[in-house]
Amino acid sequence: MFDSVALIGCGLIGSSFALALREAGITRTIVGFDRDIATRERARELKIVDRAASSVTEAARGATLVVVAVPVAASAEVFGAIATALDPHAIVTDVGSTKVDVVAAAGDALGAAVTRFVPGHPVAGGEVHGPDAASATLFRGKRVLLTPITDGAGTTDPRAVAAVEAGWTACGARVERLGPDVHDRLMSAVSHLPHLLAYALVAQIADADDAAAKLALAGGGFRDFTRIAASSPVMWRDIALANRAALLNDLDEYRTGLDRLREALSRADGPAIEALFERASRVRGGWRPVD
Amino acid sequence: MFDSVALIGCGLIGSSFALALREAGITRTIVGFDRDIATRERARELKIVDRAASSVTEAARGATLVVVAVPVAASAEVFGAIATALDPHAIVTDVGSTKVDVVAAAGDALGAAVTRFVPGHPVAGGEVHGPDAASATLFRGKRVLLTPITDGAGTTDPRAVAAVEAGWTACGARVERLGPDVHDRLMSAVSHLPHLLAYALVAQIADADDAAAKLALAGGGFRDFTRIAASSPVMWRDIALANRAALLNDLDEYRTGLDRLREALSRADGPAIEALFERASRVRGGWRPVD
Repeated sequence: MFDSVALIGCGLIGSSFALALREAGITRTIVGFDRDIATRERARELKIVDRAASSVTEAARGATLVVVAVPVAASAEVFGAIATALDPHAIVTDVGSTKVDVVAAAGDALGAAVTRFVPGHPVAGGEVHGPDAASATLFRGKRVLLTPITDGAGTTDPRAVAAVEAGWTACGARVERLGPDVHDRLMSAVSHLPHLLAYALVAQIADADDAAAKLALAGGGFRDFTRIAASSPVMWRDIALANRAALLNDLDEYRTGLDRLREALSRADGPAIEALFERASRVRGGWRPVD
Repeated sequence: MFDSVALIGCGLIGSSFALALREAGITRTIVGFDRDIATRERARELKIVDRAASSVTEAARGATLVVVAVPVAASAEVFGAIATALDPHAIVTDVGSTKVDVVAAAGDALGAAVTRFVPGHPVAGGEVHGPDAASATLFRGKRVLLTPITDGAGTTDPRAVAAVEAGWTACGARVERLGPDVHDRLMSAVSHLPHLLAYALVAQIADADDAAAKLALAGGGFRDFTRIAASSPVMWRDIALANRAALLNDLDEYRTGLDRLREALSRADGPAIEALFERASRVRGGWRPVD
């Protein structure tokens, strides 16, 4: 039970979490802040939050749970603003797509309260944005990855982790725990790199002299492959920068693989091309999304 | 009206075309051949074809329309086998995903009959295969690209083009005409390159030490981006080889773009990354699949 929740950032994920927490009956009051005034007022109109605060600090004051649901690049600033306003037992969590940088920012800004910061990443969302797109059912059956610190000086309070886990579970999500660095390395390969590759393909077509003719012929394969290239450019710029090390590593590996494939194609090496396609097709054909 | 149709290749596309032609009531008899005996017998059991022939030549003999629906790499052999069996007024068409190589193969094998060869490419299909997956409605609202030769020695007979176009239109497809080389260049960018990129990403993840952990975390973005990597490895090997020149060109352009993006990421150049993502996101957000 979280008596009072502060929602910092009233976008799709934060607003959906607020709606789901309320529907699960595990919170009484939700105060919302968004640096965009229209967005926080809209969240209030939609009854996603009970009250719109005019600053991060005002929202966080007195809250039992502070949910930081802002683009990852804005996390440090938010942590700085809530640090002095936090109640002694307040729990803080976030929903950012990268975790190493967010954990570091929390460590820098939150002081002793960092032990009650539970880093989280709900694997949900899409090409819709803002409070109007929010839904109490967005996380049902979806995975939420929690990356608490399990050893060393900044070890996360296990009771804080359990409380946040219980909150997500009440929203219908399936919670998994893993290390922040493991999280970032895995997400780089299966999410961040594909975004980069899809953006690069659409940009190439957009820049071509015959862009219109190409787009007019594009079909279902193009539609699905490039769906993620319609995602928020600012959000994905920040994710790419935040997870730069892992992403550069995966990108270099990808370029090496692409170079090999290019060489095979250039010498018309059918067996080599087929072997790679076959390996990928078998793995992809046998894979099922968990949610 | 095609009195008798010969279907060479009873896979998803050929079988669906046969079903659609029959449902449209514009053909009387359909004789089918597939080099896989079980497949051609299955097509007969499913009443996709009235009779299963035991050779390409036998199927083609006496047909008003010969539909070549085999992997592009097998086209030349099929054209060679039908050349001497064709009736003097028989029309030949195909459904291959590449056109320059198929047109060349037809030119080499069909002799004078090449003027009645109408190269075609229905932009439809997916990850299902074979006659059991066939449907009379597969082409409804879908585009079919015809690439007749419009000048020079091998000019395609306009009546043959009109007849094949009428057949596809009766199946609910929307027919467009363009040159074989233009077709191959456009499809390389919006279809063949994305397939290569998706196969390469899945192969990279499959080859990683932590492949299982990565695949366990993969979500909706990965699902859509890699859907085409579950496609037939043999079919896509042949398409890549058949359209090698255009594909190598697009691949080199892509690698140059990726190198630039890597440099921007490596120097943490947020504005450059955002500009590329923004350009792609705007174009992809404004694009709608035509079918």
